[in-house]
Amino acid sequence: MTGRTARRRVLRVSVPDGSGPDPRADLLAVEEPLEIRVGGEPLSVTMRTPGDDLDLAAGFLAAEGVISSAAELSQIKMCDSNVADVTLAPGVGGPGARLRRQFVTTSACGVCGRESIDAIRVRARYDVSADPARIAPATLAGLPGRLRAAQRVFASTGGLHAAGLFTAGGDLLALREDVGRHNAVDKVIGWALRAGRLPLAGCVLLVSGRASFELTQKALVAGIPVLAAVSAPSSLAAELAAESGMTLVGFLRGASMNVYAGAERLAG
Amino acid sequence: MTGRTARRRVLRVSVPDGSGPDPRADLLAVEEPLEIRVGGEPLSVTMRTPGDDLDLAAGFLAAEGVISSAAELSQIKMCDSNVADVTLAPGVGGPGARLRRQFVTTSACGVCGRESIDAIRVRARYDVSADPARIAPATLAGLPGRLRAAQRVFASTGGLHAAGLFTAGGDLLALREDVGRHNAVDKVIGWALRAGRLPLAGCVLLVSGRASFELTQKALVAGIPVLAAVSAPSSLAAELAAESGMTLVGFLRGASMNVYAGAERLAG
Repeated sequence: MTGRTARRRVLRVSVPDGSGPDPRADLLAVEEPLEIRVGGEPLSVTMRTPGDDLDLAAGFLAAEGVISSAAELSQIKMCDSNVADVTLAPGVGGPGARLRRQFVTTSACGVCGRESIDAIRVRARYDVSADPARIAPATLAGLPGRLRAAQRVFASTGGLHAAGLFTAGGDLLALREDVGRHNAVDKVIGWALRAGRLPLAGCVLLVSGRASFELTQKALVAGIPVLAAVSAPSSLAAELAAESGMTLVGFLRGASMNVYAGAERLAG
Repeated sequence: MTGRTARRRVLRVSVPDGSGPDPRADLLAVEEPLEIRVGGEPLSVTMRTPGDDLDLAAGFLAAEGVISSAAELSQIKMCDSNVADVTLAPGVGGPGARLRRQFVTTSACGVCGRESIDAIRVRARYDVSADPARIAPATLAGLPGRLRAAQRVFASTGGLHAAGLFTAGGDLLALREDVGRHNAVDKVIGWALRAGRLPLAGCVLLVSGRASFELTQKALVAGIPVLAAVSAPSSLAAELAAESGMTLVGFLRGASMNVYAGAERLAG
């Protein structure tokens, strides 16, 4: 496994005092391509921070709707430090539909309005709307602090996104970091899938940045009823959460938060 | 054109004083899919904030190495609010190589070590290493403030990334915002391409977040000699910049910055 941080020479420059450039060593987050293959066929190349690559490959396939349980995975192996090869269980359909989905258009001129979300949507196999989970706002407010405390790499590079999976009681189940925020979420969900824990009923997924449509969809596909983000959600993330019965919390900072969907799960 | 922000009802919750949920309207950054077609054939769907969509389509194709000048574009038109169709000039090769590039592997087991960067690299038509641009550190230090001052949408949603193109003297040439940081850069570069301004010799590209390999590559393909980021670069971004003779500045905050490559351009 390649390391997660790399040392690099850097010049620290300050203005306006003209203090001469100060050469020092700096730790950078490593970014390397991971090629994901299915049955030996290249499917995707993602730029990621090495580590938890088997989880990343599994989570990527779950997010794309190819697999939804460990039973659908026959094997994942690294055939090189930057190539993961996935063997699906017999009878599991391959990822062909994924590429088709990218180009699905509707009758008229395609990707627009209401149809657009359907066209880019991955079919979720789990229904989070019926999840009876409740989480206290005070518990939610404590999660970013728990996430940061658990992030060892972030402190040294400043360059990694984090995704944390928590119980509704606030216990951390899994934390993953990556230069790509989508990868961090894929790693968490892939870990859960491989551990036989999907759907993640009663769980909260916390992301260190924003909540995009894609991140919301990843949570939905994994059956996670509560998605919380430290920063803003997008309009489409809020819309997808509302339609799906998912709770979406944004701007989770300090003692306050914004609830964009599913406020009924925030027990006082 | 769809709007760039959308109003949505939100509950503001604070702890631990138990102050009841406070319903209010919140502005969210709009995220919608844009399908990019070339000659009527769907090529890619990207989740973006509507606006400057023709620039986004042009910049995307430039970043993928399909086009490098306005002369290679015959026409770009929106055939719907979320579909951009590009017609290449006669004789310009299509984007076929792009998809192949995703799956290029080397002789042994592929995407690893030194070969990996080559495999995912877009051929840059402009050589930035010979660009004689110089920029004073004090000028660089002032750019984030100029970018923020020019960002009107950010102030209202907190959800948009920005990319700004500056002269070496610190004058803002173009600013674009998007929920996706790659899109913001594509919009800036697409604007420049359509305006006949590529290569962007002597220019500085400032991004509001981190500098990834892909963003560095986008700058390189546009012939930009200086890339500055408010946050951290990745290891591969620093490596690509050093190899290409590009200046890469990270952690550009307040009065200081880290220079990861091309320090000779920072005239005192």
